[in-house]
Amino acid sequence: MQKFFTTSKSRRVETFESLLNRPLKHHHSLPGKRELRMAGITWHVFIPDSLLEETHDPKLRAYKVGQIARAAAIFGVEHIWIYRAGGRDGRFIKTLLEYAETPQYLRKRLFPLMPELRYAGVMPPLQIPSHKPKESPRIGEIREGFAYRKGKKLFADIGLDRPALVKGVAQEGRGTFKVISVKPLRVVPTKPEGYWGYKVHLTRMTLAKTLKKANLDVVIATSRKGVDVRRADVTLEGDVGIVFGSPRRGVMEILREFNEDYEFDVILNTIPGQKTKTVRTEEAVLATLAVLNLMRGD
Amino acid sequence: MQKFFTTSKSRRVETFESLLNRPLKHHHSLPGKRELRMAGITWHVFIPDSLLEETHDPKLRAYKVGQIARAAAIFGVEHIWIYRAGGRDGRFIKTLLEYAETPQYLRKRLFPLMPELRYAGVMPPLQIPSHKPKESPRIGEIREGFAYRKGKKLFADIGLDRPALVKGVAQEGRGTFKVISVKPLRVVPTKPEGYWGYKVHLTRMTLAKTLKKANLDVVIATSRKGVDVRRADVTLEGDVGIVFGSPRRGVMEILREFNEDYEFDVILNTIPGQKTKTVRTEEAVLATLAVLNLMRGD
Repeated sequence: MQKFFTTSKSRRVETFESLLNRPLKHHHSLPGKRELRMAGITWHVFIPDSLLEETHDPKLRAYKVGQIARAAAIFGVEHIWIYRAGGRDGRFIKTLLEYAETPQYLRKRLFPLMPELRYAGVMPPLQIPSHKPKESPRIGEIREGFAYRKGKKLFADIGLDRPALVKGVAQEGRGTFKVISVKPLRVVPTKPEGYWGYKVHLTRMTLAKTLKKANLDVVIATSRKGVDVRRADVTLEGDVGIVFGSPRRGVMEILREFNEDYEFDVILNTIPGQKTKTVRTEEAVLATLAVLNLMRGD
Repeated sequence: MQKFFTTSKSRRVETFESLLNRPLKHHHSLPGKRELRMAGITWHVFIPDSLLEETHDPKLRAYKVGQIARAAAIFGVEHIWIYRAGGRDGRFIKTLLEYAETPQYLRKRLFPLMPELRYAGVMPPLQIPSHKPKESPRIGEIREGFAYRKGKKLFADIGLDRPALVKGVAQEGRGTFKVISVKPLRVVPTKPEGYWGYKVHLTRMTLAKTLKKANLDVVIATSRKGVDVRRADVTLEGDVGIVFGSPRRGVMEILREFNEDYEFDVILNTIPGQKTKTVRTEEAVLATLAVLNLMRGD
C-alpha cells in the first residue's frame, strides 16, 4: 500500500487544498483485511490506559469514557485501541466503551452486574445505526442480536418482543442479523451496511507494539508540537490510526517512557493556535476527528 | 462591512479551498466596536438557556458547563451569549462559565458562597493566559486583578503575596493590570494582549433579539441540515457569531417556537456524515470551533 507524506510551509495554499480535497483512493479488499470494506477510510483511535489518571470521581470517570465513545460514534470510528501507558484503567475503559456500543436490549445478556458499570448510566446514548428501537420488523432490516441454542435450533434476540429463528450458518453470541421473514420471524447472519459501531481492543501492550498489531496503512500522531493540520499533506486511505496521549504526557513522551520509537506518517497539530495550556485527551479526540472528518470521501 | 456568502455543489474543490484559505481582512477599529481589536476574528458563541434540559445530575450539569467553557477557551472565544429558549438554567450557566473564567486567586473575592457553585470544582481548569500562577512579579507582566480602595489609595489583588498599588485611573472591581514596579509593587490598568478570556452575556432575550444586540458582522447557524462546511463559502471577519441549538431542538426550531425569523449568513453543517442520530450541544460547540478554527488567520 502506498504511503505519501510531505510537509512544507511555503506550499500552504496548495497543501491546504490537497489536505481536504484529495480524492480518496478506493480500498478494494486487501488480503488479510476486512473483506467488506470497499472504499474510503477505516478509522482507528488509540487512547492510553492512563486516560483517567486525573479523574477520581467515579461518575465523571464513566462520563469521560462516554465522551470518547460519543466522539468515536459521531465520526464513525470502527476501532478503539487502548494501549499500555502506565495507567490502571484499561479494563474499566474497555468495559464501558463496549457497554456504550451495545444496543440497550442486549446489555443485560452481555454484561453481568459488575462494579465498573455502576455509573454506566451517565454515559450519553450513542444513537448509532445498530441501536434500533423495538418496532415492527421489516423484511430486509438489519438488527444487532444475540444468538443462543435451544434444542437443536438457534434463536436470536434481536430486541423485538419474540426471538427470531436463525437460518444459515451462525454461532452463538453477539452477531448481526437480517430479517428474511416476519411471520414466522426468521433471520440470517449478515454484515452491517455502513457504519454500525466500533470494536474495542485492550492490547496490554505499549504504543509501538499496539500500532504494529493494528497493521495500519497510515498512522497519525497528535501533538501540540506537530505540523499545523492546515499545512500538512497526508494521503488518508485504508486503515488510518490516530494516536492520542494521556492527560499528563504527550504521545512522544509516552513512547520515550517505554523506550520505544515509532515512525509516524505525520505528527499533526489539529488545534493550531490553542489558547489553553493543554488540551485534554477527550477534547483532542473530538476536535481531531471533527477536523479529519472533513477529509472523508463520503 | 462587506458580507459575502454563496454555496454551490458544483464548485466543491474551489470553495473547499476558499473556505480555509481566504485571506482575512484586517479589522481596523470600527466605530462603536472594541477599539483594541486590530485584526482577525472575534468569536461569539450562542448557547440556549435550555442547554442542560436533559441533564439532571448536579455534578454532570456543572461538568457540561465546564465543557462549554473549555471549548470556548481552547479556541479563543471572547463572548458567550446565553439566549432564552425556554430553559431555566440561564443564571446557573452564566455563573459557572464566569467562575471557570475567573483566575483561581480571585474567585473567593468575586463569588460568594452560593448553591450553584457546589459542584464548580468538577469543571476542568481553563489554563488560559489570564490564569497565572503565584510567582515573582516581573515588570511589564500583565495580570488579572481585583481593585479595592483603602483610605485614599487604590490597591489591587493580582494573585501575589502582597497587594499592588494602582497608579493611573482605575475603578474598583475586577480589571487587568500591568506591573510597572516590583519594589514597591505598582501596577497600572491595561488591556490584555492576545486572548485573555471570555465575557458571558445572559440576555434573557430570544435568539433573534440576542443576535441583534450582539451586533455581529457574520452570523453562522449550525444545523445537521445546513450546508456541508466543505462546500460553504463564507467570509469570516470581524465579530463572528456561531449559534447552537438545544439538546432537544435545533436552531431553526427554537426560532419558530418563539415566532422569530433570522437571516443567517450561512447555516453550516460542521459534522458532515455524522453517524449518531443527534449531536449534543457541548459536542457541537467543540467540533464546530475545531473546524472553524482552521479559518483563523493567526
